[in-house]
Amino acid sequence: MVEKYVYAFSEGSKEKKFLLGGKGANLAEMTKLGLPVPQGFIITTKACIHFLRNNCQYPKGMKEQVLDSIKKLEKKTKRKFGGSPALLVSVRSGAPISMPGMMDTILNLGINDAVAEQMIKETKNERFVYDLYRRLIQMFGETVKGIDPKKFDSVLEHAKKELGLRYDSELDSKEMKKIVEKFKKIYAQETNEDFPQDVYLQLFEAINAVFNSWNSKRAITYRKLEGIPDDIGTAVNVQMMVYGNKNNNSATGVLFTRNPSSGAKGLYGEYLIAAQGEDVVAGIRTPNDIRLLAKEMPKAYKQIEKIVRKLEAHYRDVQDVEFTIEDGKLYILQTRDGKRTAMAAVKIAVDMVKEGLISKEEAIMRIKPEQIDQLLHKQIDPGAKLNIIAKGLPASPGAASGKVVFDADIAEAMGKNNEKVLLLRPETTPEDIHGVIAAKGVLTSRGGMTSHAAVVARGMGKPCVAGCEALQIDLENKQARIGALIIKEFDVLTIDGNTGDVILGEAPTIEPKISSELKTLLSWADSIRVLGVKTNADNPTDSAKAREFGAEGIGLCRTEHMFMAKERVPVVQEMIIATKTEERKRALEKLLPMQRQDFYEMFKIMNNLPVTIRLLDPPLHEFLPSKDALLKDIRVLECEQCKKNISLSEIKEKAILLEKARALSEANPMLGHRGVRLGITMPEVYEMQVQAIFEAAAKATREGYKVKLQIMIPLVGIEKEIEIMADLVRKKAEDIMKKEGLRISYKVGTMIELPRACVVADKIAKHVEFFSFGTNDLTQTTFGFSRDDAEPKFLPQYIAKGILLENPFARLDTEGVGELMRMAVEKARKTNEKIELGICGEHGGNPPSIEFCHKIGLDYVSCSPFRVPVARIAAAQATIKSQGLLKKKKGKKR
Amino acid sequence: MVEKYVYAFSEGSKEKKFLLGGKGANLAEMTKLGLPVPQGFIITTKACIHFLRNNCQYPKGMKEQVLDSIKKLEKKTKRKFGGSPALLVSVRSGAPISMPGMMDTILNLGINDAVAEQMIKETKNERFVYDLYRRLIQMFGETVKGIDPKKFDSVLEHAKKELGLRYDSELDSKEMKKIVEKFKKIYAQETNEDFPQDVYLQLFEAINAVFNSWNSKRAITYRKLEGIPDDIGTAVNVQMMVYGNKNNNSATGVLFTRNPSSGAKGLYGEYLIAAQGEDVVAGIRTPNDIRLLAKEMPKAYKQIEKIVRKLEAHYRDVQDVEFTIEDGKLYILQTRDGKRTAMAAVKIAVDMVKEGLISKEEAIMRIKPEQIDQLLHKQIDPGAKLNIIAKGLPASPGAASGKVVFDADIAEAMGKNNEKVLLLRPETTPEDIHGVIAAKGVLTSRGGMTSHAAVVARGMGKPCVAGCEALQIDLENKQARIGALIIKEFDVLTIDGNTGDVILGEAPTIEPKISSELKTLLSWADSIRVLGVKTNADNPTDSAKAREFGAEGIGLCRTEHMFMAKERVPVVQEMIIATKTEERKRALEKLLPMQRQDFYEMFKIMNNLPVTIRLLDPPLHEFLPSKDALLKDIRVLECEQCKKNISLSEIKEKAILLEKARALSEANPMLGHRGVRLGITMPEVYEMQVQAIFEAAAKATREGYKVKLQIMIPLVGIEKEIEIMADLVRKKAEDIMKKEGLRISYKVGTMIELPRACVVADKIAKHVEFFSFGTNDLTQTTFGFSRDDAEPKFLPQYIAKGILLENPFARLDTEGVGELMRMAVEKARKTNEKIELGICGEHGGNPPSIEFCHKIGLDYVSCSPFRVPVARIAAAQATIKSQGLLKKKKGKKR
Repeated sequence: MVEKYVYAFSEGSKEKKFLLGGKGANLAEMTKLGLPVPQGFIITTKACIHFLRNNCQYPKGMKEQVLDSIKKLEKKTKRKFGGSPALLVSVRSGAPISMPGMMDTILNLGINDAVAEQMIKETKNERFVYDLYRRLIQMFGETVKGIDPKKFDSVLEHAKKELGLRYDSELDSKEMKKIVEKFKKIYAQETNEDFPQDVYLQLFEAINAVFNSWNSKRAITYRKLEGIPDDIGTAVNVQMMVYGNKNNNSATGVLFTRNPSSGAKGLYGEYLIAAQGEDVVAGIRTPNDIRLLAKEMPKAYKQIEKIVRKLEAHYRDVQDVEFTIEDGKLYILQTRDGKRTAMAAVKIAVDMVKEGLISKEEAIMRIKPEQIDQLLHKQIDPGAKLNIIAKGLPASPGAASGKVVFDADIAEAMGKNNEKVLLLRPETTPEDIHGVIAAKGVLTSRGGMTSHAAVVARGMGKPCVAGCEALQIDLENKQARIGALIIKEFDVLTIDGNTGDVILGEAPTIEPKISSELKTLLSWADSIRVLGVKTNADNPTDSAKAREFGAEGIGLCRTEHMFMAKERVPVVQEMIIATKTEERKRALEKLLPMQRQDFYEMFKIMNNLPVTIRLLDPPLHEFLPSKDALLKDIRVLECEQCKKNISLSEIKEKAILLEKARALSEANPMLGHRGVRLGITMPEVYEMQVQAIFEAAAKATREGYKVKLQIMIPLVGIEKEIEIMADLVRKKAEDIMKKEGLRISYKVGTMIELPRACVVADKIAKHVEFFSFGTNDLTQTTFGFSRDDAEPKFLPQYIAKGILLENPFARLDTEGVGELMRMAVEKARKTNEKIELGICGEHGGNPPSIEFCHKIGLDYVSCSPFRVPVARIAAAQATIKSQGLLKKKKGKKR
Repeated sequence: MVEKYVYAFSEGSKEKKFLLGGKGANLAEMTKLGLPVPQGFIITTKACIHFLRNNCQYPKGMKEQVLDSIKKLEKKTKRKFGGSPALLVSVRSGAPISMPGMMDTILNLGINDAVAEQMIKETKNERFVYDLYRRLIQMFGETVKGIDPKKFDSVLEHAKKELGLRYDSELDSKEMKKIVEKFKKIYAQETNEDFPQDVYLQLFEAINAVFNSWNSKRAITYRKLEGIPDDIGTAVNVQMMVYGNKNNNSATGVLFTRNPSSGAKGLYGEYLIAAQGEDVVAGIRTPNDIRLLAKEMPKAYKQIEKIVRKLEAHYRDVQDVEFTIEDGKLYILQTRDGKRTAMAAVKIAVDMVKEGLISKEEAIMRIKPEQIDQLLHKQIDPGAKLNIIAKGLPASPGAASGKVVFDADIAEAMGKNNEKVLLLRPETTPEDIHGVIAAKGVLTSRGGMTSHAAVVARGMGKPCVAGCEALQIDLENKQARIGALIIKEFDVLTIDGNTGDVILGEAPTIEPKISSELKTLLSWADSIRVLGVKTNADNPTDSAKAREFGAEGIGLCRTEHMFMAKERVPVVQEMIIATKTEERKRALEKLLPMQRQDFYEMFKIMNNLPVTIRLLDPPLHEFLPSKDALLKDIRVLECEQCKKNISLSEIKEKAILLEKARALSEANPMLGHRGVRLGITMPEVYEMQVQAIFEAAAKATREGYKVKLQIMIPLVGIEKEIEIMADLVRKKAEDIMKKEGLRISYKVGTMIELPRACVVADKIAKHVEFFSFGTNDLTQTTFGFSRDDAEPKFLPQYIAKGILLENPFARLDTEGVGELMRMAVEKARKTNEKIELGICGEHGGNPPSIEFCHKIGLDYVSCSPFRVPVARIAAAQATIKSQGLLKKKKGKKR
């Protein structure tokens, strides 16, 4: 038996999307709904796949089925393809997943010289017929034969210029006829053959072109980018033409069933009188607001209103509809779910629940969690004209404008005077942190999406564009160069952290607002999700912000950031330079009250919520100036000393620092003397921190706050490490609580961020009450990728070559890193049923990674404050997906 | 029922070692054999454990059993403990595993004033009795009461000095009596109580002391060092005294049944006439060679000969025997397996197989594989007097003397003149390699057992002492300081790579020799082992050496070492500096013939054996001078330019290098742009290497050699990486073979050295024909340890604190790294049954690691040439252990 490769619209439905393509399935669906759809048929994706795999041969029976379908269409429309009255058709591609990279549409197929002549007789409208003809030659020539469109355009332009006309529509029938002749000549010149007079040849060549467009370079690139499989093929839609350009009682238009920008109810769109579909999109004439149509064609408008209400109810989502009015009669040409902004998406989803169209679960599934992030940051006004001078990586969302400064200290000073500054650096280090705090945004020429600048900026919710390699920064002269353009200190730039754009001058922005709809949606998400959502926050400001965004506690407080405050650095350095434990303890005693105060503030803000504090993690040399900088300083001082006979003491001080920096320097600091290794070799540092934590907790408790403490040991990989450290923490804790005369509930836990920790998780779990997966470091060690080196040096090539589909530092590598996590979860629960399991790597704010965390059974994710709402939605989606909660409401008929 | 805590010698046997301790079990065994053993009984290790766990309380029934055993001993010996004729006993500790850190022996227990008086009557030998008494007071005082032995010794010394005597034995009975009185006084002063006259009090206090010695600091330290469990306890042996010091027809001695140094057959040992056991060991008088006893006491000597032959046949190993002759009557006091040198161990094992005493498998199990290493290197003459000035890590075995040089170039220059030099550096880098080649040995002040210097030296079989921190090296002035001692360039030092000793001057050495016995033993090992043994070799010299040592091919040839040759470095740098692919290809074309020649030489040497070539692995900046060095050079040149007005070109050259070094510098080079990542981003480098390999193979093949090629891609962690690279290698290979007009058998494989590679081993395995575990890097990434940073900075503390029992870079961490390997093996075989699996990390030469490799089912290990014989033995041992091959031969009676 021969397979069925061709379906009439009346034979399909929206469920057959993979066979008929999205467009075809929707045309069939609308036909089923009884809407006025110009009839036609669909050639299946299977036919396409066969064609491409078999050297451009049609599958057996396809050609006959197409011919048969034309016959049936002729019967249904009472017209004749290549005959009289003339049946013209459109031929369009339609893949199962929307693919803008592919060939789109050929209109008016089926005209030849004879048909044209006869149509003139039928319509008495020569101009109309030649307009159709010239459009066919042009579209067929371009999309089937690949002729440069400019060749056709220049003929039109030339004609209008000669006659002093502005619009194509002003060309009269005589001119149009000439143009058809000229187009035919171009066609013949470019293809060495005449424009085909055989309408079936036209048809099959168009079908072949659609099939082949599946493997066009643009389409392949697009599929790779979007992760669409290569072997699903495209369908071909062949549909009877209707003519919005027939006369002034005709029109064509596009509309959304709700405002795709704000989400507000009511039709939104535009139309053109006496035009074909492409004219609206091409912007040749300025189209009218759809609401004007109510006046111009009240009957058609009412019909549209009724139909689109029906469509929205049926599809249970905002529809993007194309329509044509031919001599007063309305046709619907296409419908699809409408693309919308983040704000609109939220409003529409919530409204539709209220309207009873969809369930809460569906509303949540409609939102791309990533979009939520945009709603929390200032945006560049979408209508503004921008002078984009370079592009970097969109490292932290939002827009920021300010005077460019190249130095963190200057940024801080200007920030204090309420000046808007933008910190521009090759890259940032923990020493620049005060500058980042003071700046409105950060722009770097080096480093990737997870560079220091990016991570810190995202944590603070500040816009950041990173790795803008076009920028050549000259720190000495305080200027940057982009090509020939020189940017000096205090010049104003704007960065767009959503797109990576760097813009000259101050771009207009719009303020963010947490809408009541977003609040509603988030509360629904909270009632559904199983995963807890905590935040990574190191200071009171971030903590307060995160709580406002719905964080259920702090999942990671990095104490080292507290060491970085400018006035503390000298004390920290004193501690590092100490050669004897006694000296070190003296410096630690100075740090103790500072740390205590930090923790006390956090406990107050996080009253009644858990606060997870990680003991010191980075290698100590991070707290010293770089060796290069010290060397340079010393050289400068020595020089000055020569000249001015100044004292030696300052040089000596620097020399001591330099010596220490040299002693502490490491070949691979990522894998060096850090984390629990510091705790083991210098227990007094961890002891000081535990003391500060418990003293602060005692103070807050006495003042009536409820403190829930979690103490976390970083970088554990060996059972004995955590055994010793958990013991140290518990002993010191008991000690302080005894002194303070009260008890504070606390847990001891560890970060799981080394492959070995995953392998021996059962053993480690015996000693702790919680694990938190540090997936940043776990990704580094599992892949053997240094983030700092990989992102600028070879990751981009890896992604371009398809070796990795995404940056594993942004989206969790579930196959490798995730498999180790899964193993660790299983092992840990085996020896410690009650253990609490979370994640505090940056992946904790990445929706697909959150879904994975849900799947392997973690208890919570922790992410930067601005990612908290994103994570709440993503966590709810993970629950819905895994529990099959998505029972769709049946669409109501209205 | 009361448990049995005390066993008479006649009730035990050597199988009860864990209950009775090693010494007790052997005394029981000898009793069973009917040998003349002074009778006695053993208190079990279980009693000891109970005692220690229960606050020094004996278990129920023990005391009664001891008292009962004394009664039985009295009956058997027809003597009386504390009565007449006097029964004196020795009390000795005896753990299941020999532990020199514990209390050893109290002799003559059971004397008090009354017993002494009465013994004088019995023996008519006042001097003998007082000698026994003073020995008891001294030993009891020292070992039970902890009195400083010097206090007793000074009394003896004083007495001899006063009388102008040399030996204790010259002191007459009157003097001895005085000494007893003085000893009693010391005892009373030190303990505030009189020496106990109750012989049972003496006995139980001695038993308690033995029990408690299990937890002495020395014993605990020793157990930790040797990995002996803490909860097995020690037994106590109580044995009737016999008296080698009774008269001149008495003697005491120690002997080995074969020469423990050479392995030669025949008794080896020494004795003293009229002495107690301790005198022999204490070296108070010079003992006689055992062979003299044949003349002095021919009857006893014959009896000894007969007995030890019986013992050796029974224990089927060399015995270390203590004996005493009391008035002409021979007693055997102890026997145990004799410790021996590596050379002796091999000879004895092989001889015993030939004698039919043991099986080949037993012979192999008798050898510590590590010992074999010693036999292949020059050793310091064990009899030489040495001036040891410092101690470092014993990083590569053997001894080397030479003139100290601080610079690789100078080492090379002097080496060419056949001068013996020792390269002394803070640490070595690949740039020093020509210096290492030229030097007799390497001494570094930094770096651990697996530092560059250590690895390279071991690979070349050159002695190396690493991490000798006492050395302060001043490169500028070409001298080093150890405390006050200054070592200048060209001063002569000797290093001992077996011990880590650094010796002033040239120490006398003995040459190594592969004995015929070793050859025999290795051939037996080959016939038993399942694991293949290949070698890591990068040059013809090493390859030839390895083949001589029995390597079955090359498991790892690191091509980068071929890039390091001095005359090639400029070409390599040219390749690196190239900014365009074209420029890079030009440099590669220059390297091609050099690489081809390298490979050609290796193929000839490894005729008919597989050669595994790893494509370029290290990050490119390793081939450039360091940034610091370049900066300094530039500064010097600039200075000179000022003065002498020299050309700028040299500065420019350096500046280009500096710029490139900066661009290539990485935060964590271990995790950076290296391995397959180079192959992906610069395929032309790998292509050149594959071309060189196949052209060389073609040449060798044409000349009649049989080439078996394995091409290995390093650092793969992602399936797509190996998919792309295997394809590149195969395409290029086919290309060259086509051009050359012949076929060469080859395999493509990958190193497994990242945790992710282990996790996705099933996917990677689909694309290759072999895996080789790179456990050095796998250990680094699994632990998150940078070897360069961990070994000097925190690993020593980790091992001291028992967090890790051994350096995981020396011995494979089976719990973590090993578990990942096991997983990878399982996964790989699932998708590729025929895949060949090996290891080429340094662990491939470490016996316990080799055993693990056998267990998880690898096909081969690959190690440095000098470890090949070690690995052959270790692999055979692994087979024997796992397959239960060790069917012991029954000892023959003679």
